[in-house]
Amino acid sequence: MSERSPRNPVQQIGILVFPDAEELDFVGPWEVFAMAAAVVGDLRVALVAERAEPLRCAKGLRVLPDHDFATAPALDLVLVPGGQGTRAEAENPRLLEWLARTAARCTWVASVCTGSLLLHAAGPGRGKRMTTHWAFVEELRRRAPDAAIVAGPRYVRDGNLVTAAGVSAGIDMALWLVGEIWSPEAARATQRAIQYDPAPPWTAEV
Amino acid sequence: MSERSPRNPVQQIGILVFPDAEELDFVGPWEVFAMAAAVVGDLRVALVAERAEPLRCAKGLRVLPDHDFATAPALDLVLVPGGQGTRAEAENPRLLEWLARTAARCTWVASVCTGSLLLHAAGPGRGKRMTTHWAFVEELRRRAPDAAIVAGPRYVRDGNLVTAAGVSAGIDMALWLVGEIWSPEAARATQRAIQYDPAPPWTAEV
Repeated sequence: MSERSPRNPVQQIGILVFPDAEELDFVGPWEVFAMAAAVVGDLRVALVAERAEPLRCAKGLRVLPDHDFATAPALDLVLVPGGQGTRAEAENPRLLEWLARTAARCTWVASVCTGSLLLHAAGPGRGKRMTTHWAFVEELRRRAPDAAIVAGPRYVRDGNLVTAAGVSAGIDMALWLVGEIWSPEAARATQRAIQYDPAPPWTAEV
Repeated sequence: MSERSPRNPVQQIGILVFPDAEELDFVGPWEVFAMAAAVVGDLRVALVAERAEPLRCAKGLRVLPDHDFATAPALDLVLVPGGQGTRAEAENPRLLEWLARTAARCTWVASVCTGSLLLHAAGPGRGKRMTTHWAFVEELRRRAPDAAIVAGPRYVRDGNLVTAAGVSAGIDMALWLVGEIWSPEAARATQRAIQYDPAPPWTAEV
């Protein structure tokens, strides 16, 4: 556990990225946390990857990580996105070892979508209550038979572990974390700054 | 106007990026359009910038554009995000000239947040009904006195021009465009794929 002021227990957020991570899974929370930093101050957000080289996301967007595993700063909150790449990374011992070691020192551990597969494979999700993208609930139940996989909620908290449903659910979870870590007022100011007053236009039954 | 099948009038979407573009302004629509491509087929989405070099967004995320202005494919839909960088780009004749020329050949022209400043500066927004981020409505009214700037709606359509409110509103607008261009069923399938069933947790008055 890092040493932080009790008035600001989270000063450094790290978002793990890897090839074929799903774009909105991590850019939604990135935007929320980075906007929250403008509200609460003394908060940094960084992309961390196995290698500090450009990587191609699941839908083709190419991003540059800020740090590799060796040079990443100490994190207070680690967030793991989902995407097709989670299947390969679930077999990547270097990534799982970094995630296990990093999560053990974090105040909060979070995932979006199929990022929960990685949190389980790395250890922090073992035996926990978690969620994931609606289309991958059964896959997660098979891969994580010791965990309680909940379908339906936008995000699920179990201790310091918070897992969100698919893709866009990371925005709601990140706002919840801002309210829980700093204050509801900070979360509301962040929500206003990103004008998050959603109005899905085509009435899908999601 | 490009020559496209009437059954699929949009085959190539281009999202303009520039230094200090706001991250979620363009990654929200990127995710929606790229997921829609998996539903409707025969659709590509690319990031276009003045130079095909890594650029730093408004909150620090670094992305790699797919094309520069010289090598970009013909576009059927161009989308302009907002962000602090729009103020410098509104004085960039190369960008404005590219945007004017490109928009004139597009079936649809769209912006998110303060991207509407650029659509006005480049020409396509002149005399049109538009919106922007709630905090920049007055600034846009000063910069675009010939346009009708509407505050309140999530997005505003005027002919083939569609402008969205701040940051997260680009997700709703992109879904609307998918429904309008292809079908409401395609938009609903896209919405389900990104599990867009938003539930803002802290009840801000946005």
